[in-house]
Amino acid sequence: MAKRQLHLGAILEGVGADHHSWLDPDLPGNASIDINWYIEQARLAEAAKFDLIFIVDSPYITPDTAPHFLNRLEPLTLLSAVAASTSHIGLVGTLTTSYWEPYNVARQFASLDHISRGRAGWNVVTTGLEGAALNYGRDAHFEHGVRYARAREFVEVVQGLWDSYEDDAFPRDRASGTFLDKSKQHRLDHKGTHFSVAGPLALSRSRQGQPVIFQAGDSSEGRALGAAIAEGTFAASQDFESGSAYYADLKARAAALGRNPDHIIVMPGLVPTIAETDEEARAVAEAAQGALSIDKLLTQVGRFFNYHDFSKYELDAPFPDLSGVTLNSYKGGAERVIRIAAEEKLTLRQAAYRFGQWTSPFVGSPETVANEIERWFTGRAADGFNLRVTRPRDFALFREKVVPILQERGLFRSDYADDTLRGHLGLPVPQHRHAQPPVAIAAE
Amino acid sequence: MAKRQLHLGAILEGVGADHHSWLDPDLPGNASIDINWYIEQARLAEAAKFDLIFIVDSPYITPDTAPHFLNRLEPLTLLSAVAASTSHIGLVGTLTTSYWEPYNVARQFASLDHISRGRAGWNVVTTGLEGAALNYGRDAHFEHGVRYARAREFVEVVQGLWDSYEDDAFPRDRASGTFLDKSKQHRLDHKGTHFSVAGPLALSRSRQGQPVIFQAGDSSEGRALGAAIAEGTFAASQDFESGSAYYADLKARAAALGRNPDHIIVMPGLVPTIAETDEEARAVAEAAQGALSIDKLLTQVGRFFNYHDFSKYELDAPFPDLSGVTLNSYKGGAERVIRIAAEEKLTLRQAAYRFGQWTSPFVGSPETVANEIERWFTGRAADGFNLRVTRPRDFALFREKVVPILQERGLFRSDYADDTLRGHLGLPVPQHRHAQPPVAIAAE
Ligand SMILES: Cc1cc2nc3c(=O)[nH]c(=O)nc-3n(C[C@H](O)[C@H](O)[C@H](O)COP(=O)(O)O)c2cc1C
Ligand SMILES: Cc1cc2nc3c(=O)[nH]c(=O)nc-3n(C[C@H](O)[C@H](O)[C@H](O)COP(=O)(O)O)c2cc1C
Repeated sequence: MAKRQLHLGAILEGVGADHHSWLDPDLPGNASIDINWYIEQARLAEAAKFDLIFIVDSPYITPDTAPHFLNRLEPLTLLSAVAASTSHIGLVGTLTTSYWEPYNVARQFASLDHISRGRAGWNVVTTGLEGAALNYGRDAHFEHGVRYARAREFVEVVQGLWDSYEDDAFPRDRASGTFLDKSKQHRLDHKGTHFSVAGPLALSRSRQGQPVIFQAGDSSEGRALGAAIAEGTFAASQDFESGSAYYADLKARAAALGRNPDHIIVMPGLVPTIAETDEEARAVAEAAQGALSIDKLLTQVGRFFNYHDFSKYELDAPFPDLSGVTLNSYKGGAERVIRIAAEEKLTLRQAAYRFGQWTSPFVGSPETVANEIERWFTGRAADGFNLRVTRPRDFALFREKVVPILQERGLFRSDYADDTLRGHLGLPVPQHRHAQPPVAIAAE
Repeated sequence: MAKRQLHLGAILEGVGADHHSWLDPDLPGNASIDINWYIEQARLAEAAKFDLIFIVDSPYITPDTAPHFLNRLEPLTLLSAVAASTSHIGLVGTLTTSYWEPYNVARQFASLDHISRGRAGWNVVTTGLEGAALNYGRDAHFEHGVRYARAREFVEVVQGLWDSYEDDAFPRDRASGTFLDKSKQHRLDHKGTHFSVAGPLALSRSRQGQPVIFQAGDSSEGRALGAAIAEGTFAASQDFESGSAYYADLKARAAALGRNPDHIIVMPGLVPTIAETDEEARAVAEAAQGALSIDKLLTQVGRFFNYHDFSKYELDAPFPDLSGVTLNSYKGGAERVIRIAAEEKLTLRQAAYRFGQWTSPFVGSPETVANEIERWFTGRAADGFNLRVTRPRDFALFREKVVPILQERGLFRSDYADDTLRGHLGLPVPQHRHAQPPVAIAAE
């Protein structure tokens, strides 16, 4: 078996999914809508041999939404433009199964997969924010369980459409006038609970067979979906202990379904704070904490509860009783907030600092950060990380100082061995569902 | 007023929307799924100072569909990749209002508009082929009139979403910590017959304000839609007489709605056959006619009637009676076929040659083709043309021989004067619906 290798993704979040990053003077104010900013970051990540770039998304905003989400390029168009300006790095886009048509989604990702010559990935989400419903002709968001049932069927349909043509469906033989071998075009004729889709899709498979499926969602239902369909997950893990618990749970669920657990790559988010020395890095991180506005942190905690207004509660009283407040939104996250706040008897102010930002143990010298990464990797809390690269200085230090250490230790590639996303992630090309099984050759 | 200028688009149809073009040995068999082929054609068109490239589309195929449509890149992803590899040429993509969500469409075109720095256009179609319904969870296609009512409201919603932010909505002032001026973010709160969409959209306007709206559809209802919303039309006109009748009709309809008729650019399709001399060109065109397969022509005529099977009728008998056959599909085209077949007493075979291909009067030497273009342009049958560039030889001759003649005559630009699609087409930047009207300055 090939040696287990660390995987690295770069989440390109422009001016930031938080309310503070944009204040960094090194970050262009229009980063989120400037395709050249994305192309530049993607090229930097590619030069550092990252597996992929990762674009998060959401179909709902309010005036209080964090800067990046307020005004940003859309993932499929963005990634297609980046595809034309890169050659190796994987291109993963987030798209919700709650408010799209499977036929359109199948086409756009398959098209990106051709455009990038086999580098496309789809991060399947169900959308947490309930207001999204209002942008799509519905009075209310789908209930949490329904969202996941739809997601499961949606992905099944999309993957079915991706196999509309066998790999040798197009002889394009001018002599006989045969462009298509009609016997190798397949209708799907899916009729399910949530979708009916006939097909076929007007796109053949790419060099990697099908786009790679990622998934993000942390509740029990979210993990069940991931175990069933994901080939990679964007994990919410923010400390080693919960990270390794998630890792073990997800892989066990996949194994129980008969899947090879090595074929789900677990990649938590990683927000690094890097400096020459540990002391310096800690000082930078502390200064950043000191500059946080409590109002903005409360807004971000509110996001788990569909933008519930936390500003109306006493800051130094115990975390408020939220019975009656919706958990239908980010259920996994909301339950975690309530549970930990109770277990650790947090005040609202403490909870705001704890849950209103992506907390990170990746603070220190390049050596320290590399050690922590190695600990998570060898300790099976992660197969890799999705670096959130908003702060230019930390991204540069990560590429220039941390990555070389990981390479020296043999944890991370020094050069690409492949040029498809599946190749980078060590994932097999899925067999075509209509292909004949290979004829067994009798031994002797 | 600026002198009226001819506009040129290049329809990039890969291996062809007909059943014969792919046999051309100069055309790569995988053109329709090779992004490098599209980028190369777009660059050639840009070098020849074309206004735009144009991507047609359809969300439904059968085994009998013409080669290009069977297996091709999707318009938004395709155009985003081309955007990153070009600098001036407009990028127009076709997308149906029958099977998408307005919020997603608004975002993707707005994103393309940013990526291309103001070069995006959307060709609004309602989809003719009834089988598309089966790919989107419906038993039957929307009825023709309903399709157009939905299209009208759909475009209204999308344009509303495009004005979610005023142009100065983002001060991004680090000193005061103000990223967004919240008073300049606007919800749409549209509640209509077919759609309800709250907004806002998470994208500001581009350099050209909003993407340019094209439209294709030839029935009376189709023209009514074009007159109301289109800033350009892809016209079905295949001869001067019907072309000038369409032109006059469309512009009169627009004027009746209080619009400036110069702000709808009429661009019929143009299939050129060019050679050194008229005789040679006619011989090439005749040889091409002789090579056509009658079966394939019948399939193409059938397309107007939702792939009605014409092979079951007598070829040399009068064009069959089609009462009972659906006109809900390509109504404008179907009615035209029936009307002309009756008026001119065509046999089925004659009708197949007449309607089973895009007939073209643009056959001859470069001079002859330029003359015919000038005749349509000055005679008000067209404001420009959408060149169907499947045959590499004719595209090369058009760029190298015909365009210079048009330039010498002062009909067509010799260099770009602008770098947005609106700029090329002479269209105004739409005023923002929430912007304050400029304060009138009292004259003395
Ligand atoms: C780490 C993480 C990242 C997510 N990213 C997105 C995203 O980019 N867009 C989105 O609409 N939803 C995103 N989600 C939301 C999920 O799709 C899901 O709707 C929500 O988390 C509720 O599911 P859960 O209770 O299983 O977590 C994310 C969730 C997690 C845990
Ligand atoms: C010149 C022309 C081009 C068209 N191109 C497309 C296309 O690319 N995709 C599509 O789905 N429909 C296309 N249509 C179909 C129209 O959107 C419409 O559904 C159909 O023509 C019926 O409307 P009508 O009766 O007004 O023509 C086209 C129609 C015309 C006339």
